[in-house]
Amino acid sequence: MEKKSNVKQFTDRLEKLDFSKMYEGDFFLTWEKSQDEIAAVFEVADALRHLRENNISTKIFDSGLGISLFRDNSTRTRFSFASACNLLGLEVQDLDEGKSQIAHGETVRETANMISFMADVIGIRDDMYIGKGNTYMHSVVDAVTEGNKAGVLEQKPTLVNLQCDIDHPTQCMADMLHIIHEFGGVENLKGKKIAMTWAYSPSYGKPLSVPQGVIGLMTRFGMDVSLAYPEGYEVMEDVVKVAEKNAAENGGSFTVTNDMAEAFKDADIVYPKSWAPFKAMEERTELYGKGDFDGIKALEKRLLAQNAEHKNWTCSEELMKTTKDGKALYLHCLPADITGVSCEAGEVDATVFDRYRDPLYKEASFKPYIIAAMIFLAKVKDPVKKLQELEETAKVRQNG
Amino acid sequence: MEKKSNVKQFTDRLEKLDFSKMYEGDFFLTWEKSQDEIAAVFEVADALRHLRENNISTKIFDSGLGISLFRDNSTRTRFSFASACNLLGLEVQDLDEGKSQIAHGETVRETANMISFMADVIGIRDDMYIGKGNTYMHSVVDAVTEGNKAGVLEQKPTLVNLQCDIDHPTQCMADMLHIIHEFGGVENLKGKKIAMTWAYSPSYGKPLSVPQGVIGLMTRFGMDVSLAYPEGYEVMEDVVKVAEKNAAENGGSFTVTNDMAEAFKDADIVYPKSWAPFKAMEERTELYGKGDFDGIKALEKRLLAQNAEHKNWTCSEELMKTTKDGKALYLHCLPADITGVSCEAGEVDATVFDRYRDPLYKEASFKPYIIAAMIFLAKVKDPVKKLQELEETAKVRQNG
Amino acid sequence: MEKKSNVKQFTDRLEKLDFSKMYEGDFFLTWEKSQDEIAAVFEVADALRHLRENNISTKIFDSGLGISLFRDNSTRTRFSFASACNLLGLEVQDLDEGKSQIAHGETVRETANMISFMADVIGIRDDMYIGKGNTYMHSVVDAVTEGNKAGVLEQKPTLVNLQCDIDHPTQCMADMLHIIHEFGGVENLKGKKIAMTWAYSPSYGKPLSVPQGVIGLMTRFGMDVSLAYPEGYEVMEDVVKVAEKNAAENGGSFTVTNDMAEAFKDADIVYPKSWAPFKAMEERTELYGKGDFDGIKALEKRLLAQNAEHKNWTCSEELMKTTKDGKALYLHCLPADITGVSCEAGEVDATVFDRYRDPLYKEASFKPYIIAAMIFLAKVKDPVKKLQELEETAKVRQNG
Repeated sequence: MEKKSNVKQFTDRLEKLDFSKMYEGDFFLTWEKSQDEIAAVFEVADALRHLRENNISTKIFDSGLGISLFRDNSTRTRFSFASACNLLGLEVQDLDEGKSQIAHGETVRETANMISFMADVIGIRDDMYIGKGNTYMHSVVDAVTEGNKAGVLEQKPTLVNLQCDIDHPTQCMADMLHIIHEFGGVENLKGKKIAMTWAYSPSYGKPLSVPQGVIGLMTRFGMDVSLAYPEGYEVMEDVVKVAEKNAAENGGSFTVTNDMAEAFKDADIVYPKSWAPFKAMEERTELYGKGDFDGIKALEKRLLAQNAEHKNWTCSEELMKTTKDGKALYLHCLPADITGVSCEAGEVDATVFDRYRDPLYKEASFKPYIIAAMIFLAKVKDPVKKLQELEETAKVRQNG
Repeated sequence: MEKKSNVKQFTDRLEKLDFSKMYEGDFFLTWEKSQDEIAAVFEVADALRHLRENNISTKIFDSGLGISLFRDNSTRTRFSFASACNLLGLEVQDLDEGKSQIAHGETVRETANMISFMADVIGIRDDMYIGKGNTYMHSVVDAVTEGNKAGVLEQKPTLVNLQCDIDHPTQCMADMLHIIHEFGGVENLKGKKIAMTWAYSPSYGKPLSVPQGVIGLMTRFGMDVSLAYPEGYEVMEDVVKVAEKNAAENGGSFTVTNDMAEAFKDADIVYPKSWAPFKAMEERTELYGKGDFDGIKALEKRLLAQNAEHKNWTCSEELMKTTKDGKALYLHCLPADITGVSCEAGEVDATVFDRYRDPLYKEASFKPYIIAAMIFLAKVKDPVKKLQELEETAKVRQNG
Repeated sequence: MEKKSNVKQFTDRLEKLDFSKMYEGDFFLTWEKSQDEIAAVFEVADALRHLRENNISTKIFDSGLGISLFRDNSTRTRFSFASACNLLGLEVQDLDEGKSQIAHGETVRETANMISFMADVIGIRDDMYIGKGNTYMHSVVDAVTEGNKAGVLEQKPTLVNLQCDIDHPTQCMADMLHIIHEFGGVENLKGKKIAMTWAYSPSYGKPLSVPQGVIGLMTRFGMDVSLAYPEGYEVMEDVVKVAEKNAAENGGSFTVTNDMAEAFKDADIVYPKSWAPFKAMEERTELYGKGDFDGIKALEKRLLAQNAEHKNWTCSEELMKTTKDGKALYLHCLPADITGVSCEAGEVDATVFDRYRDPLYKEASFKPYIIAAMIFLAKVKDPVKKLQELEETAKVRQNG
């Protein structure tokens, strides 16, 4: 393969941003990061992809481990994390303890240290229980910070939140980078309308981290963000406040409606996706805490019945026609529940989904680069210089 | 370790072969490849082994992933694939979805893309259902080809068939390379007799890919290939036709017999191994399709009973005596069912197996190099030049 | 990160030791190694850690596999082995066969070869059955030695005992290196008292490899080693003899007592930990051999009852006060059974454990370096020269 690259287009923009605090930091929630820091992640992700596509190695680690800790099965996120680590030169080691095996408190402190002797990065996905996932991630970071100070660990590994109960930053930033590319730049997003809407699914209990992550992030770019769901499907109140504040500060708007059609009307972007009511997820967490499995069963039954009342909340061809020029960009974190394909009635019509297959896969393809950019910014002291160096050295990745 | 190597012995032969179409290609079935292409795989495998044994690094990837997708448990194949990837510089990521989880059609398309963002190679083993495994592999290749065209994947990963319902190319080519080495060169094989025979095993439903792969490949070297099995244990008709055509074109012969003794008589090479009747495997696939588990149970019972009628089909010392000078080369893909060791009555006498232990392990040892050669030829534009370069640079593998 | 290193402090001492026989060797039991060989492992471990902490790469392998074979679940040991392999440039491949799947005898010989085509190292943990684990490791080494001679394997991989029924060398050497650091050098250990004592745990059947490994190793440094346990909790007689011989030869003492207080009195170091009686473990192995599961259940019940008679064997604050200046160094291989935290009554008071948390984690942090040092000494012909080379070349590990 030929080598040609021009990483300058990214480093020129990167040089104007202040992201110095990301060095040796962690990535928990997008709204804990400044506008510049968010922009820096996008630039570095694009730069790394550019280098990769020009067959230039982006290995900044000669050796080292990326630890993945998933408390859920996950093919997509696992492969995205593994890809990001490999891109930078880290080997992945999965910690596959059962959901119950890793207790909290002191055990977290111990396990976090025991797996981190050679860890440069820890990626955690823990989205199942309200009030637990993000807290757990902080416990891990506290433990390895202390371990580093005490001389146990020769460095503090960087945490990447691969999905928690509050936010799904790697997903939503991949979604956002996809939008930026589709619309030809972040400067073109002002005044664009995005509809983040609930959609019917025959399964229940889908995590809230995607809708919350979307309203917490997309309100920062001057867009009109419309969150729509049937009554009773409220998301976490704290994140709604974040979205309101973001919109106020960044010149867009944030509205909540119980009408899917209203949200879709003239939308430039639509993101119809099922989730469970926040209150119900809180209830489930409490029931699990008590070990009340009969209660959990009853809750599941109730949630499925509640979902079934809203089968009309689906991304149909009819609804798509009401979007901007009938051609809104359709987003989904995948896998989607496709009517007549993966289920009888689901989140989206098969013809709609099919028409957007390539953009959907492209949307997903940004995730490994987003994760790699988060690691890069936490581990590299001078990212601009390092990206320039990588291009100049131009070490061939696939030497065929 | 000292460094000395002479890769010229392989590149001299390689230069005379036309294998240009293998670049950016895939490896499904041996009979889809030309004589030159098959020969090229052997030469590259030998060259890579030669370099490795002289402690010269053969890493052509600075980073990148080799994805393994096994729909069966497999220690041997898994380690062979992992070894091949490591030899070339790729990190392995296993996709261990349950047999049922990866559905076909659109889901394949999606999953194939989701796991391939950084994939240079995908190795698939899917041998359980007639008409499904090879088809599935093609779906994966179609999906990633499309993904690459749509800009989702920055490259199309290469597929290596690690065993399908039709062929087992990495096994049979390792078997063949072993034969070539044992007989001192492919030029010495003309007129040699090889007996691929059924043998009794107390288990049932063993895949047909080995006997099919053997008759599809071994008929290309001017050998007399004798396929023997008890009536009712027919293999896939299409592959029989391939074998007949091969023999006609390459100056050897292909015969089918229901007499094990006839096949063994004066054989230079014997490959006694159990398999299930093709028709029964077709039936099983249909039963699985219908979810008819009672039907499957009944079929299993019938197959075990049918097997038990042919306990005399075993590679005994007596039969071995009837081979060429009583010293035919004994082959097996391992693990074998050894009489009195792993079962009461099985495919081979313990004393026969024991005498061939070293050659059997050597036979197996070619597999990682065969897989690596397939990847090498698909990923390296000028394999001759690259092999010369690797020798000249002589980067030390184990720097002790 | 800045680069500064002075590996000379380690190589100067290393140069005076004779460890030439470790090259191309294996690591089974500490007492099979000479004093110089044990010292060499410590020096190399310290040197590798020193280089790592100065961000200097210690990769001596350009490619290659480290095979881990665990017949037990193990997070800690698995991550330690993976870390050690990564530190040296090897990729880990786990062989996760169920406990029953890897039979002994010929199957071991076959499997050992099949997984070793690209293996530089094999790490095995097999501690469950008396008389089996260490024997199994020897079978594996015999198999790969033979495989290498027969031309199947291009090299003989090095075995590292990650815990067997007799010894736990990587744990005990990590413990010992921790002691050496805490006491400011091996020369300060003469006359120090270490108490290896049994402690109550509500679980049963904990392996004997730690107490055995400790008395087999710690008696080699001129220390007074006191082994304490309730009557009936005897360890393997052969190891007791090793400890007695060591003490006689190295100017310390080895005593056995049934009084925990006596062992703790004036101790400089305490290692209170539960284990099962050797005789009971022998019995269990026989019961498993016979498949007598009722017998196993009865044995478990008996052992739990027996344990419960000795709940007063716990590392309490009171007992700690009786140690040297009330400040003995508390050791544990982790995880510990902590009273009021992980169980109602256990091996140690929560306040004691908490006070020693940092040193305990540091103790554990030596294990990856000990494993790496064992591999280094088996794979590198001239370790002194290689360490100097690594420092001089000073290849940056984390290139940020």
